[in-house]
Amino acid sequence: DNTARLLVQGNDRPGIVSELSTLLTTQGANIISLDQYSTDPQRGLFFQRTEFYLDGLSAALPDLEAAISQTCERLGLTWTLSVASRRKRVAILASKTDHCLLDLLWRQRRGQIDMDVEMVIDNHPDLASQVREFGVPYFHVPVVDGDKKAVEARHLELLQGNVDLVVLARYMQIISDDFLQQVGVPVINIHHSFLPAFIGAGPYQKAKDRGVKLIGATAHYVTKDLDEGPIIEQDVVRVGHSHTTNELVQRGADVERAVLSRAVAWHCEDRVMRHGNSTVVFA
Amino acid sequence: DNTARLLVQGNDRPGIVSELSTLLTTQGANIISLDQYSTDPQRGLFFQRTEFYLDGLSAALPDLEAAISQTCERLGLTWTLSVASRRKRVAILASKTDHCLLDLLWRQRRGQIDMDVEMVIDNHPDLASQVREFGVPYFHVPVVDGDKKAVEARHLELLQGNVDLVVLARYMQIISDDFLQQVGVPVINIHHSFLPAFIGAGPYQKAKDRGVKLIGATAHYVTKDLDEGPIIEQDVVRVGHSHTTNELVQRGADVERAVLSRAVAWHCEDRVMRHGNSTVVFA
Amino acid sequence: DNTARLLVQGNDRPGIVSELSTLLTTQGANIISLDQYSTDPQRGLFFQRTEFYLDGLSAALPDLEAAISQTCERLGLTWTLSVASRRKRVAILASKTDHCLLDLLWRQRRGQIDMDVEMVIDNHPDLASQVREFGVPYFHVPVVDGDKKAVEARHLELLQGNVDLVVLARYMQIISDDFLQQVGVPVINIHHSFLPAFIGAGPYQKAKDRGVKLIGATAHYVTKDLDEGPIIEQDVVRVGHSHTTNELVQRGADVERAVLSRAVAWHCEDRVMRHGNSTVVFA
Amino acid sequence: DNTARLLVQGNDRPGIVSELSTLLTTQGANIISLDQYSTDPQRGLFFQRTEFYLDGLSAALPDLEAAISQTCERLGLTWTLSVASRRKRVAILASKTDHCLLDLLWRQRRGQIDMDVEMVIDNHPDLASQVREFGVPYFHVPVVDGDKKAVEARHLELLQGNVDLVVLARYMQIISDDFLQQVGVPVINIHHSFLPAFIGAGPYQKAKDRGVKLIGATAHYVTKDLDEGPIIEQDVVRVGHSHTTNELVQRGADVERAVLSRAVAWHCEDRVMRHGNSTVVFA
Repeated sequence: DNTARLLVQGNDRPGIVSELSTLLTTQGANIISLDQYSTDPQRGLFFQRTEFYLDGLSAALPDLEAAISQTCERLGLTWTLSVASRRKRVAILASKTDHCLLDLLWRQRRGQIDMDVEMVIDNHPDLASQVREFGVPYFHVPVVDGDKKAVEARHLELLQGNVDLVVLARYMQIISDDFLQQVGVPVINIHHSFLPAFIGAGPYQKAKDRGVKLIGATAHYVTKDLDEGPIIEQDVVRVGHSHTTNELVQRGADVERAVLSRAVAWHCEDRVMRHGNSTVVFA
Repeated sequence: DNTARLLVQGNDRPGIVSELSTLLTTQGANIISLDQYSTDPQRGLFFQRTEFYLDGLSAALPDLEAAISQTCERLGLTWTLSVASRRKRVAILASKTDHCLLDLLWRQRRGQIDMDVEMVIDNHPDLASQVREFGVPYFHVPVVDGDKKAVEARHLELLQGNVDLVVLARYMQIISDDFLQQVGVPVINIHHSFLPAFIGAGPYQKAKDRGVKLIGATAHYVTKDLDEGPIIEQDVVRVGHSHTTNELVQRGADVERAVLSRAVAWHCEDRVMRHGNSTVVFA
Repeated sequence: DNTARLLVQGNDRPGIVSELSTLLTTQGANIISLDQYSTDPQRGLFFQRTEFYLDGLSAALPDLEAAISQTCERLGLTWTLSVASRRKRVAILASKTDHCLLDLLWRQRRGQIDMDVEMVIDNHPDLASQVREFGVPYFHVPVVDGDKKAVEARHLELLQGNVDLVVLARYMQIISDDFLQQVGVPVINIHHSFLPAFIGAGPYQKAKDRGVKLIGATAHYVTKDLDEGPIIEQDVVRVGHSHTTNELVQRGADVERAVLSRAVAWHCEDRVMRHGNSTVVFA
Repeated sequence: DNTARLLVQGNDRPGIVSELSTLLTTQGANIISLDQYSTDPQRGLFFQRTEFYLDGLSAALPDLEAAISQTCERLGLTWTLSVASRRKRVAILASKTDHCLLDLLWRQRRGQIDMDVEMVIDNHPDLASQVREFGVPYFHVPVVDGDKKAVEARHLELLQGNVDLVVLARYMQIISDDFLQQVGVPVINIHHSFLPAFIGAGPYQKAKDRGVKLIGATAHYVTKDLDEGPIIEQDVVRVGHSHTTNELVQRGADVERAVLSRAVAWHCEDRVMRHGNSTVVFA
């Protein structure tokens, strides 16, 4: 209950680690773990994640935030402070396939991902009972007459104000730039290839046609450019000439669920920082 | 001395395995290992690698080849027969970097790759003494006045009739279609990315820019389309945000040498069969 | 429906592959895939798995089995013939943890493991509703007054004649030699370490204490010697100094479910052959 | 030239990060990277590695060390400060096999390991010319009449005062406790198995006999208990039933050289901290 995480980034300059750790110590905090990275020994970009313990954290929060704000403003840094016990509220968007969705729900139930799944939104009705078995609200939002605008509007009604993160668990629909701006929270997608190989639709068929010896999956933040957002995590699995495209799909599913679950877990533990089209992951 | 390998491929039909194994048994051979693969249960493509032991192999060879030829012609199959003790004669083309070249030479010396390295051809002189330490002839063939035609002509003089395989060990020069046709033996290249990601020059810089979490290498047969030939082997290694492009190059070198050495070893043991733009690898 | 798999093993001698493939061809079968392995070029042990397609398989079965039996008897080989459409009937024994159990059920449902799960037997009642959600019978057989004899007797009542395979999905109880003999079918266990490291109870705590950098899991056939049976599959995952024992348990769970699922899938596709305390896996 | 690394460890208490980073900042240093780990949120053990840049480092060193010494003494911490440009002086002890030795020399030459190899000591003469090709002094110290005491005495003459680290690159001889105490620097060994599996001699034969599906290697600090010292790094490679013991040895060699090279590189970059029988590795 008394653990928090401070993320800070900006232009590097001497003394930032010292100022921030002194600030935390002065406020009575004990630093549990600190990860720091600069892109260059001099004049690079600075990234820091600090996890700390502070007795009576919630009472101390206003003063702490004021102090951090003041220091970071002076040093030209941006920051976010997360209380570990306030778990991220997550919506999962799914389609027909169940592997990524069920793995996220199962890991949340066994305490491996620090999140509260507030809802699952699905454009096919098949997974309703399985989702509700986990005690999670399930909303079926079908595409009617190809009206994707209407679907996104319905999604926004459900999501806005209610979640801190949207996860596309093989949702398979293109998200409009407009939606991304309005939803106002990060969106993580799992792409079923080792990006940037096999961008776009049908990556397993493309992989079979090209005769690759490994297939992969990529979890990334969604930006307006399809499959081009900052990569959080990737992994691969070995395949051979005897595997059919369908077997690639099955083997790939194992990688997809593992990669997406790791990416979501890291995001929910405030281990991922974005800059440009890249990520810094303190995992 | 009495071990041979028979590779057969063509359109599948019932009875091929039976006919071939009966043929070998009738000739007195004992099958040590047999790998067979059909692309489809019915009417697919058929691939088979058979390793067998035959007392007095070299004396028996003419009769054996005549029998195989007759059977395969009747069944509409193509075939090659290799005597295991006749090691493939290999030329390695190198440039400045040493990691792939030295790993191949070192593995050959310790008996891990079934080949005789007949020569190393290099367009820079730096590696001469190291290559000769392995007892391998070294030819320095520099590009003079940008005349690549002259270089390829000199290469062909050295190679034609003398080798069964050409290996590009980070040779870094584009090979002309004309050269490929005239050299008349397979050419294996190592590309320093997980193809088809990062085709072309500078893959590590591209990987850094894209922020990928794994980098890889690909060994493939060279065809007239750059980086598009049949893939023999691929592998990857994990990288993180803190690795510089130079560190990607270093980590990548470990993958490159491992992938190329595996591909060359498999080729030299007749474990790789090509069809279309793919390979069947019985490893 | 017309696909079958023939497993043959015994002392090697020239001509076995030929005799068996000719036998199959004579009976009208088309060999789809053939894997063969001998422990030595001469006088070793012989192992072969042949998958074949035969029109009207079930009508042809008696004649086929008679022919195989006669040939194998003459050659001194043991054999089993499995019709692919007759899926293995499997019982899963579980305890409190759900990861291996749910992964097996989920893979069966999506068609990745060729088995029919006939029942789940559990010594704790917690997982009943989740198992039944998959449409699988669930039996709660608690240990009463520490009477393990009674539990095994109850298990035998449920299992005998009803299943072809028993899977211990983190069942965590020692199986008596008596039970193994009476149940009369193979039993596969998942041990939560990379055997032979950390035999016995508490492997993750032992791994933490020893400071290893990888943890693993091992699927093996159960024999009367605990953790000593023939290994089917193993895998590992990287861990670091910062992982608590509890995090090792969580990371290990991912490896356990993957390893056990692969082992069960291979067994159900007749890809595993036992000899002595080892396995030959044609995967 | 102006980069240094400060390692600090001891009992955790609030304020250590702050005190140390403030100290460095006050002395004019810019922290480039900081890794910190505590075994427990409260009252655990504290470990920190700080890499920093300081203009005019060598002139500033005496004052800096005095300040660190004073602070760490007050906080009850032990510390070491390493100047990055003062590379560790390393002796490699080898026997007949070349793979670990050559990989270390080759990586050092291409700038991948931050060390100066001062000498190679070998109990067989075979590798002399290869070692000297790298420009490294080579000493042949054979065991005469089984007199290991004499060998260790000769080793100590060569080593004492001349090196900061001894690496056993498949040296294959047991090191006496007496030697360990007198040599006065850390000793890193590569064991050719995934410890604690297959402790002692002949691990590949034991692995073959047990039928494992992965083989591994372990780099560890040498202590008086054979194969029981703190593990720095481990890795594995997949093997199958068809691999002979000799092929396990060859595959294992690839893992051994990779694992040992990583461990030595990390040690030389001051990334490894020991406590009890474990290591903290900030890699």
